[in-house]
Amino acid sequence: MQDARHPRAERSGPPARPRSRRLPREVRERQILDAAVQVFAQHGYHEAAMDEISEVAEISKPMIYTYLGSKEELFVACIRREANRLIDSIGQAVEANLSPDEQLWRGLRAFFEYANENRASWTVLHRQASTQGQPFTAELSEWRQRALNLVTALLARASGTDEQPVPHEQMQPFAAALVGAGESMLDWWIDHPEYTADALSMRLMNLVWMGFGDMVQGRRWKPYE
Amino acid sequence: MQDARHPRAERSGPPARPRSRRLPREVRERQILDAAVQVFAQHGYHEAAMDEISEVAEISKPMIYTYLGSKEELFVACIRREANRLIDSIGQAVEANLSPDEQLWRGLRAFFEYANENRASWTVLHRQASTQGQPFTAELSEWRQRALNLVTALLARASGTDEQPVPHEQMQPFAAALVGAGESMLDWWIDHPEYTADALSMRLMNLVWMGFGDMVQGRRWKPYE
Repeated sequence: MQDARHPRAERSGPPARPRSRRLPREVRERQILDAAVQVFAQHGYHEAAMDEISEVAEISKPMIYTYLGSKEELFVACIRREANRLIDSIGQAVEANLSPDEQLWRGLRAFFEYANENRASWTVLHRQASTQGQPFTAELSEWRQRALNLVTALLARASGTDEQPVPHEQMQPFAAALVGAGESMLDWWIDHPEYTADALSMRLMNLVWMGFGDMVQGRRWKPYE
Repeated sequence: MQDARHPRAERSGPPARPRSRRLPREVRERQILDAAVQVFAQHGYHEAAMDEISEVAEISKPMIYTYLGSKEELFVACIRREANRLIDSIGQAVEANLSPDEQLWRGLRAFFEYANENRASWTVLHRQASTQGQPFTAELSEWRQRALNLVTALLARASGTDEQPVPHEQMQPFAAALVGAGESMLDWWIDHPEYTADALSMRLMNLVWMGFGDMVQGRRWKPYE
């Protein structure tokens, strides 16, 4: 249904060029961001050239500036998009009707798998962003807060029952520990790529579900499937 | 016993002013660092003024520059000293003849107690350093590596036996998780000062020793004393 408030939708005359019709703004922005993540991850923030991003994206530099702003703004947009994707993939992996350990396991695995599938981008981007100072630190810390809220909610749900829900505040220190543990393992992973996503998820799962107390006794958590 | 290679020790004539004799270089440097940690923590790296550091330390600005260099170098020296103190206090708290859980507990408690006693300095300094970019990130990452090595060694010792020592490499991902968990809780603590050092140590201990598996069943780790 056409909206009469948008006169462009009703204008007559020659149609726009098919090429630009096939590339609405969202698609162009995605192309730019894909290219930028790749180039930033490869060369680092400072060394990355807008020329190369433009080349890889097959979109002109002026258009990149128009759509996503300066190099700094583009980098912030990259962090934001990748962080959102990561958080979404964790949220989707964890279903409320699963047992607490299964929820935790799926969340951890989604975290490491996402990082693994995007190793050339997200892991490196994360390290870059955390070492470049402002404004990237502010963007990362906003992302961390969202991750903390997500994990706090998951832990509260997994630890309580319908009759006795656990207050979110009680879970906050544990969520902080878990998010920090995950981040730190991710950082360590960049220098130890020989580990698989599954191997690392399993270690973090055993640490936070079984604990060292069980691990030193040789007891391990095993996935159901 | 006087050393004849140091002519100053043998020179005659009027003695040096007592004041400068009572302040050898180490003492002066300590005064400067104490003042700098305090001022950096209070105002942040960028806002902190060398004038104020000089005033608090009761040492002239030219002498500060001579002893510890630029503001940037001074900040790096602060991070280094505070990080060394933290690592030393953890190392001293953990004795090899204790049971594994007692070693872990003492290490965690030392970490949070150190941070607590130096809350105005170390915690804030840590956050500052991690958000200012280079060269502070490099200094912090050197410190992290030392912390990782310490924790890896502690975990390997606590998890193995004299007959069956655990290879250090196996403990590295767990050490990365634990260091990240501690750092992240420290960061979270800055905004939640109502928690005590003991309360946070106990939560992290329960998370990594008992695990969520025991915690959701209501089982808790308790200290011996």
